[in-house]
Amino acid sequence: SQFRAEFYNPNEWADIFAASGAKYVVLTSKHHEGFTMWPSKYSFNWNAMDVGPKRDLLGDLANAIRNRTDIVFGLYHSMFEWFHPLYLEDKKNGFKTQMFPFGKTLPELKEIVETYKPSVIWSDGDWEASDEYWNSTGFLAWLYNESPVRDTVVVNDRWGSGIPCQHGGFYTCADRYNPGHLVTHKWEDCFTIDKSSWGYVRTSSANDYLTIEEILDQIITTVSTGGNVLINVGPTSYGKIAPIFEERLRQMGSWLKVNGEAIYSSIPWKYQNDTINKNVWYTSSKDKEFVYASLLDWSKNTSEILLGAPVSSSSTRVTLLGSDMVPLNWHPASASGGIIIDVSNVKIYSLASDWAWVFKLENITPMGVNKKP
Amino acid sequence: SQFRAEFYNPNEWADIFAASGAKYVVLTSKHHEGFTMWPSKYSFNWNAMDVGPKRDLLGDLANAIRNRTDIVFGLYHSMFEWFHPLYLEDKKNGFKTQMFPFGKTLPELKEIVETYKPSVIWSDGDWEASDEYWNSTGFLAWLYNESPVRDTVVVNDRWGSGIPCQHGGFYTCADRYNPGHLVTHKWEDCFTIDKSSWGYVRTSSANDYLTIEEILDQIITTVSTGGNVLINVGPTSYGKIAPIFEERLRQMGSWLKVNGEAIYSSIPWKYQNDTINKNVWYTSSKDKEFVYASLLDWSKNTSEILLGAPVSSSSTRVTLLGSDMVPLNWHPASASGGIIIDVSNVKIYSLASDWAWVFKLENITPMGVNKKP
Amino acid sequence: SQFRAEFYNPNEWADIFAASGAKYVVLTSKHHEGFTMWPSKYSFNWNAMDVGPKRDLLGDLANAIRNRTDIVFGLYHSMFEWFHPLYLEDKKNGFKTQMFPFGKTLPELKEIVETYKPSVIWSDGDWEASDEYWNSTGFLAWLYNESPVRDTVVVNDRWGSGIPCQHGGFYTCADRYNPGHLVTHKWEDCFTIDKSSWGYVRTSSANDYLTIEEILDQIITTVSTGGNVLINVGPTSYGKIAPIFEERLRQMGSWLKVNGEAIYSSIPWKYQNDTINKNVWYTSSKDKEFVYASLLDWSKNTSEILLGAPVSSSSTRVTLLGSDMVPLNWHPASASGGIIIDVSNVKIYSLASDWAWVFKLENITPMGVNKKP
Amino acid sequence: SQFRAEFYNPNEWADIFAASGAKYVVLTSKHHEGFTMWPSKYSFNWNAMDVGPKRDLLGDLANAIRNRTDIVFGLYHSMFEWFHPLYLEDKKNGFKTQMFPFGKTLPELKEIVETYKPSVIWSDGDWEASDEYWNSTGFLAWLYNESPVRDTVVVNDRWGSGIPCQHGGFYTCADRYNPGHLVTHKWEDCFTIDKSSWGYVRTSSANDYLTIEEILDQIITTVSTGGNVLINVGPTSYGKIAPIFEERLRQMGSWLKVNGEAIYSSIPWKYQNDTINKNVWYTSSKDKEFVYASLLDWSKNTSEILLGAPVSSSSTRVTLLGSDMVPLNWHPASASGGIIIDVSNVKIYSLASDWAWVFKLENITPMGVNKKP
Repeated sequence: SQFRAEFYNPNEWADIFAASGAKYVVLTSKHHEGFTMWPSKYSFNWNAMDVGPKRDLLGDLANAIRNRTDIVFGLYHSMFEWFHPLYLEDKKNGFKTQMFPFGKTLPELKEIVETYKPSVIWSDGDWEASDEYWNSTGFLAWLYNESPVRDTVVVNDRWGSGIPCQHGGFYTCADRYNPGHLVTHKWEDCFTIDKSSWGYVRTSSANDYLTIEEILDQIITTVSTGGNVLINVGPTSYGKIAPIFEERLRQMGSWLKVNGEAIYSSIPWKYQNDTINKNVWYTSSKDKEFVYASLLDWSKNTSEILLGAPVSSSSTRVTLLGSDMVPLNWHPASASGGIIIDVSNVKIYSLASDWAWVFKLENITPMGVNKKP
Repeated sequence: SQFRAEFYNPNEWADIFAASGAKYVVLTSKHHEGFTMWPSKYSFNWNAMDVGPKRDLLGDLANAIRNRTDIVFGLYHSMFEWFHPLYLEDKKNGFKTQMFPFGKTLPELKEIVETYKPSVIWSDGDWEASDEYWNSTGFLAWLYNESPVRDTVVVNDRWGSGIPCQHGGFYTCADRYNPGHLVTHKWEDCFTIDKSSWGYVRTSSANDYLTIEEILDQIITTVSTGGNVLINVGPTSYGKIAPIFEERLRQMGSWLKVNGEAIYSSIPWKYQNDTINKNVWYTSSKDKEFVYASLLDWSKNTSEILLGAPVSSSSTRVTLLGSDMVPLNWHPASASGGIIIDVSNVKIYSLASDWAWVFKLENITPMGVNKKP
Repeated sequence: SQFRAEFYNPNEWADIFAASGAKYVVLTSKHHEGFTMWPSKYSFNWNAMDVGPKRDLLGDLANAIRNRTDIVFGLYHSMFEWFHPLYLEDKKNGFKTQMFPFGKTLPELKEIVETYKPSVIWSDGDWEASDEYWNSTGFLAWLYNESPVRDTVVVNDRWGSGIPCQHGGFYTCADRYNPGHLVTHKWEDCFTIDKSSWGYVRTSSANDYLTIEEILDQIITTVSTGGNVLINVGPTSYGKIAPIFEERLRQMGSWLKVNGEAIYSSIPWKYQNDTINKNVWYTSSKDKEFVYASLLDWSKNTSEILLGAPVSSSSTRVTLLGSDMVPLNWHPASASGGIIIDVSNVKIYSLASDWAWVFKLENITPMGVNKKP
Repeated sequence: SQFRAEFYNPNEWADIFAASGAKYVVLTSKHHEGFTMWPSKYSFNWNAMDVGPKRDLLGDLANAIRNRTDIVFGLYHSMFEWFHPLYLEDKKNGFKTQMFPFGKTLPELKEIVETYKPSVIWSDGDWEASDEYWNSTGFLAWLYNESPVRDTVVVNDRWGSGIPCQHGGFYTCADRYNPGHLVTHKWEDCFTIDKSSWGYVRTSSANDYLTIEEILDQIITTVSTGGNVLINVGPTSYGKIAPIFEERLRQMGSWLKVNGEAIYSSIPWKYQNDTINKNVWYTSSKDKEFVYASLLDWSKNTSEILLGAPVSSSSTRVTLLGSDMVPLNWHPASASGGIIIDVSNVKIYSLASDWAWVFKLENITPMGVNKKP
């Protein structure tokens, strides 16, 4: 009863998301408690138009995103609802009745697709029942063959117990999934800036949030191993993105502005985490011309950075993203490979941040990359 | 009616203040709207014990500060009250009647001194009437001669129209007072992290807050010109220090932990702002052995830092606070003075932050310092 | 959001209804705004268990009525809902779609019948659509043939546009229907003690309520013309029956305790309203032994009461209900009929109230009564 | 925090009071919890203008009473306040300090007298401390000699412990004081229509209120023994006089309209309660021409009313107030006195109510009356 979103400004949200460097945004259309952020015909008096904010939070954000940014718009949707009596009755019946999916879940999924035309559907709340119960196959058939977004839509893997990490669109597996090694199916690491909560928690202190260094660690390791990142921020009850979240998103954007080529347009390289220098993770440009070595920690007393994985050639060239791009000196680490980069001349004024650094390598081997799905 | 401070945790506040590097804390006992943060006998049903939080916010914080930290405890107090009918009547009478100071202000000032024994009284809200109206002299006589804090208490200068910046204890002059040149009377720059508000504003965005760089700029310039700094953060209605404020305070503390000797134990030097390198401000150690040159911006493309004011000797020695303290190379800027510091070998890993930097100078001239009050 | 019923005491309600002399009670299960007083599976988060009172108001009252009284328990139910999006969509479609009756109305009607087993269903809110749209025939077929109350249940006539006053169970026609002449189909006059509202109105003044004289006028005229009476009282938001309503109900009960034989066990007589003495209305005992002449006004200066309709015989006997039942003197009004009762000896102390009075007549003609349905 | 009086209509209140037959009205300016109904300078943020209703409840009613009625306007005022810290401190000091009366009670008493010019001051809340503590003599000296109401004001007796029923203006002694025998000092019976509460209680049922018969019993017995009556009704939190109270007040007014001459313009007679007929109480007209015998119960089986106290003469005349005033037959009860009134011919239609009845007697003895103060 205290969620009123009285200071909700979708344009401001859109601008913050744009500043963060995000390529897609996924808004929660309905969470497990069943309150719908849009005026659903199937959730009378338990939606954001009838109760609390008194507006179509979802539609307003969709418009702002589309009018002001190039960001792809997606929707999160919880299939089950903790308290819905029809769901509870189906559950009591061992999910042999389907009053809830046919009376609630499926009509409202169609409603949001037809009304807001999302490019991503991020399904959740599926795990207590099978995809047969949810009639997921039927819905996806409609989505891909008949719906207004049939040509563009992407979905995840949470469509029934036993499905996640096995079937479906991009894999989300568990929350905060980040296995540390290459995964060949499209996947995503969804995590929260508040370390322990998906919603906004008024009692959280500064230490309860990921630092920008920790966020960049998640991004770099995930992308290096073939995944995408979905970063959650929970808005306040009055509809603002809290300043601490905004600061993180803007810091992230400022880093990506300098170092984005190692992230956005990259594919996994032959190697992911350097086995000798554990602070280094690799990606490759799509045309395989460049390899990016992202360094997570420069705090050790050193004037040289060792990369174990790449093998240099006589024409190898090393630069630091964000610096004035003068090539750095380097020499082979050993006869069998590896590169030692001389950073003693890197000037303080040439660093964009002290959070993470990307070395861009040209003309090294191996250039063969792992096949990305 | 919405100020309830239900998550107020004075121990947490005290710990954040300690982590910020603060040497004294000034809590608002009563602001212009007249609501008292302690259970005042003279503000029945309009205080934090009777209404809203239902606790003695002031006493609880005093105890936490004293039990957990070495921070000096002070109190802010507004003399006038915007809406108090007795004040309004005195005002209507051209301040020829004194119903309000004798019925409200003076009894409650004595009450907070006797109950909480503050070491600082930061008076405010004096400006519409003279110190005769407020009977300030009478109060201060009592404070310095009879009160329980008579041997330790310090006060500011807001005790009646025409008094600030002219008489009284440390000068506060106007809010955000920071004149940029040496002031010989004790003074203070009081400013807010929220650029435009002394209270917490739910609609403020990240850009509405001072960055850590801007805060350090205020601290460095103020201390260099002989002042102290009072930094305001407005708590939320539920009693938390917002994470964005906590982050700034902790950033400040981490910087002071490395560079504090240029701030806490310093006195103004002969020169304050370097006239050639405008990004540099000076302080001196109390024993005049060291001069500190604080640099606000290292972003320019340079491997040398020029200091115009100091004159080197053959035994001059220059180090960078927070680095491994290996002396840096330098050479005189000209025959008449100035020092050029060679920073081309300063290693990235040796920097504590990229916000501001302090060079510590030994054996330079002039060593004569301005007299500090 | 302010309906909390925190002082709702169903036992107290039951006792007040019993004291009022009521023979049946009809509770509003759901009114036009769609809020259900029971925890409906089909009204998630818009029912008295999930929101506001947090209890099953309907079930608790049903239990209290059945445990403490002999009163018959019935339910009022509104078919349409002003704001329900499915209803609004059906309406927009010219009632050619039936999403609302099949998704909401019919499931919940079955739910209340199966859960609370009411003996009366007082349907309402039917008027914008036909009984085909509502599938009323289907529901009533189930109700009378299969439901748990199939042998006892009684319904009214509001089951679709064009139905009321034409088909169905007892006729309710319009609100406050009281035609003033004999109606041969079972019918009911439903009216409110608050002259203008069916709900409790905090701003109503004493003059906005029917007096006990006005209520008895409604009862006497309705029963005389073959109808039943349904008297509405709207409870307060905190769940109490307001004292002014309770007082009226208890006054009504005290009158019925003395005069009830003219009401409860009566049937319409040959005549209803006396054509000569307009303040007199007649009923008859079921065995036709007695005729009751109810007098609505005794304020005129008189010691004789004239009844125009009855024809006396030599053995005619007249008594006043509630008095010590000593027969009153009388004489024929004229050769052709009528009776003049001598009330000059009726003692003040023998009157139960000064609201309305019933004369009981034996051995008069005509004894033939109208056929009651 | 829930007292908002949003439907407060002082004109409506004034009209109800006028309809009740009241000759004076006493509004509560401040009760024991210290909330002032007027915008007091001495109760900042704890008064009806600053908090809750946001209006001057007291001033608005004073205006309505004076503009629309002939009713005398008075004020109730509680000297002590349960929770006021200055009062509690004085109390802890054994009432040897007087911070509270000089800081709060006396300034605000003067404030209401000067602002609203009441004709009655009904003091209360005095009992824990002496009149010296309250400085009552000082206040009353000011009130009677200097205040704007010095020529008209009347006060009661609650001005310090040991004062009530001993000194002061009219005696109120204890709440609901009604001793049943003549009291020669001016006195008042103050009672509440809600049998157990001075404030409005939402959970009260019809049986918790005095019936009109019980109210008239209080009025008749009090006036007969020399007192005045003060009848309390507590308004609802939304500022209405509840309909049950309004009904009682209007019933009272309708009775007084017929029988008022026995009450308003009367003085005590030689006898008060008839010793033989316990249901009869006497008053006398001021010119001693008439004696009024008020009968509380006519429910016994009788056609004669016995009065034990009066002694008839040959010219004695007896009428019933509100009837058509035809003299009733009577005869002496015995040689030594008493009158037996023949009521067998009193017509039902001639009675104004069945609550209480007044017989007016002319030319009886004794005509000597008790001296009224």
